[in-house]
Amino acid sequence: MKITTPMQLAAGGITAAQGFQAAGVEAGIRYQNRKDLALIYTEQPARAAAVFTRNRVQAAPLLITREHMQQQRLSAVVVNAGIANACTGRQGLIDARQMAAMAADRLGLGIQEVAVASTGVIGHYLPMDRLEAGIVRAVSSLSPTSGGSAAEAIMTTDTQTKEAAWSYQWEGCQITVGGMAKGSGMIHPNLATMLAFLSTDAEVEPNFLQQALAEAVEDSFNLVSVDGDTSTNDMVLLLANGRAGNSAITREHGGELFLTALRLVAVSLAKQIARDGEGATCLIEVQVSGAATEGDARLAARAVANSSLVKAAVYGRDANWGRVLAAVGYSGANFDPDQVTIWLGPIKVAEQGCGIPFDEAGAREYLTGDPVEIRIELNAGVQTATAWGCDLSPEYVAINASYRS
Amino acid sequence: MKITTPMQLAAGGITAAQGFQAAGVEAGIRYQNRKDLALIYTEQPARAAAVFTRNRVQAAPLLITREHMQQQRLSAVVVNAGIANACTGRQGLIDARQMAAMAADRLGLGIQEVAVASTGVIGHYLPMDRLEAGIVRAVSSLSPTSGGSAAEAIMTTDTQTKEAAWSYQWEGCQITVGGMAKGSGMIHPNLATMLAFLSTDAEVEPNFLQQALAEAVEDSFNLVSVDGDTSTNDMVLLLANGRAGNSAITREHGGELFLTALRLVAVSLAKQIARDGEGATCLIEVQVSGAATEGDARLAARAVANSSLVKAAVYGRDANWGRVLAAVGYSGANFDPDQVTIWLGPIKVAEQGCGIPFDEAGAREYLTGDPVEIRIELNAGVQTATAWGCDLSPEYVAINASYRS
Repeated sequence: MKITTPMQLAAGGITAAQGFQAAGVEAGIRYQNRKDLALIYTEQPARAAAVFTRNRVQAAPLLITREHMQQQRLSAVVVNAGIANACTGRQGLIDARQMAAMAADRLGLGIQEVAVASTGVIGHYLPMDRLEAGIVRAVSSLSPTSGGSAAEAIMTTDTQTKEAAWSYQWEGCQITVGGMAKGSGMIHPNLATMLAFLSTDAEVEPNFLQQALAEAVEDSFNLVSVDGDTSTNDMVLLLANGRAGNSAITREHGGELFLTALRLVAVSLAKQIARDGEGATCLIEVQVSGAATEGDARLAARAVANSSLVKAAVYGRDANWGRVLAAVGYSGANFDPDQVTIWLGPIKVAEQGCGIPFDEAGAREYLTGDPVEIRIELNAGVQTATAWGCDLSPEYVAINASYRS
Repeated sequence: MKITTPMQLAAGGITAAQGFQAAGVEAGIRYQNRKDLALIYTEQPARAAAVFTRNRVQAAPLLITREHMQQQRLSAVVVNAGIANACTGRQGLIDARQMAAMAADRLGLGIQEVAVASTGVIGHYLPMDRLEAGIVRAVSSLSPTSGGSAAEAIMTTDTQTKEAAWSYQWEGCQITVGGMAKGSGMIHPNLATMLAFLSTDAEVEPNFLQQALAEAVEDSFNLVSVDGDTSTNDMVLLLANGRAGNSAITREHGGELFLTALRLVAVSLAKQIARDGEGATCLIEVQVSGAATEGDARLAARAVANSSLVKAAVYGRDANWGRVLAAVGYSGANFDPDQVTIWLGPIKVAEQGCGIPFDEAGAREYLTGDPVEIRIELNAGVQTATAWGCDLSPEYVAINASYRS
């Protein structure tokens, strides 16, 4: 990738780009004394692109947001945590539509300009009265500096907010891409209970906006795995309000720079999600190189990042490279096991598919760090991929044994 | 299925059928003071059929056993626990071949008549001297009543031996199918670190023997899941020595009865494996009905049995049916979410894809039992499937964090 203009890390998240405001308030959706309602607002209508869960069971807010996105213009997004409004039938659809209407009313927008998202427990209905009171408070709290507050309000079992933003100069304009995300359980390739909201002040041609989002998601959120479960509620939503004043970006006209910024934000959020996996004590980064095809590289990287046995071994600081090779073996990737080399960080632990003598104490020491890098050279070609996961601790089970209660 | 001859539960496992002997001895392969070497022997050569792991990384003993099975006749199987002899390159192949040769020598057989299997840690080499001493002792300990001892010797993190046997009368002959299995971690559809050895005294036409085994595996071991990892060492081996004196069984000639007995043994062993999943406190049986195709039913049942979130909820005695529906949703099965009904045991918890009021205390009470049955009616057709799993406890992680050490 040729980048002549440097990318710069920017402060903040969803409100880092110009013309975006946000709010996070306590609405008492399911829990007390914590923010659980976020509102994102753009001062001028934005072109919108989205990627949704591939789960056949799709929560009501996804169906409504899809409907509202038919005209590819959005001005606001309302998100609640605590209740997913999934598996709630006709009532769920009525509630999700009403959720958009309540925000539209207070913001003076058409209902079609408002997207909705929910995360939390499945099968419960939204408390519409508390939701409405929350939306009223959120509208009056909107500000260009409240991105962090919104990032807090979309958390469920997350222990940390997840924000990222990058800027660059193009054609004399300062363009920023920012975003926030949530997700720590049910995280898996193809979007698990993961919500990510991205914003940019760039003007982007609509078709390219959707393509750019799809490509960035493929290289970031779709390469993260916590537990192999794909949820009913995930979405990644990107709003581009054009406030930067640039001429419309297309793939040929400024597309590469924009994609770079978008990928940086998406990968940063994806890694924050993996690191905050339920019960996790470290981020695992799996780097596969030397694959015959990009597809093979991705399959292999994802299988290792998703292996419960690899995750548990990392938690136990056990240099169990055999589990790594076994996971590559069942990944579906095409390769010759006798050609594989594996490193844990700087330490080579297997070569030509066999274990080699290595510094066991050093490996154990390395595995106490964070992040843990597992590098796999397939020696079958030149393609690469990186996937992210986290270790598997007893705490994961404790969290998920009692989540609904 | 029309069964005119009743199937009878028989005592024992791998030596329940006539003409089979076994032994289990302490060879000190990796651990002290526990049996870790099993030998199976048939007094007259048996026709053999096998199913192997689909993992691209295949352990040395699998490669050697495949080679020896080319003539479809076996007289003995040597199995060690503690070291998997996987990812061991050329030396591993030499060791596996030598393991077969040592048993062949002592039993007066050709090396091609001996199959080998290994289970345990990946990437370590077999201690050939201790293995040989063990084989010598095993040969002298062979007896028709030592099936239980052999079942003990193939255990790794298993907490219980796994044996089953069924008999029936056909054409005046008493036919018995028996077997033993091991496996409690890395258990997943398509064979994980799971070894199963089945024996029968029936005379069976060779092609049908292989088909019958493949079908029985599809309905049993391939519907079991503990943790989603598929291993490098799995195999299911079936030996038929013809001692019962029947005319050769084909699909048309006695095939249905034989398959019934074989399935009963395989399903029993599969359930024992699921129940003994690492750290498990209960067996989970997932019954899917009303699927449009058998493939859909199997996909849905397996996804639920394999969901970490469903498993953790069962461990927590939490009637979290939303996770069940979400797993069906990402399973790849074709169905309409709005038509799904879900029961936890006798308690209906969701209908038409939505939660319904149910007795929460009763459901919690039900979930303290063993096994836990999760029933899912898709209302999309008439096909059914059953899959088995276990709950996910913090103990699973503790076991797998330190297995190699």
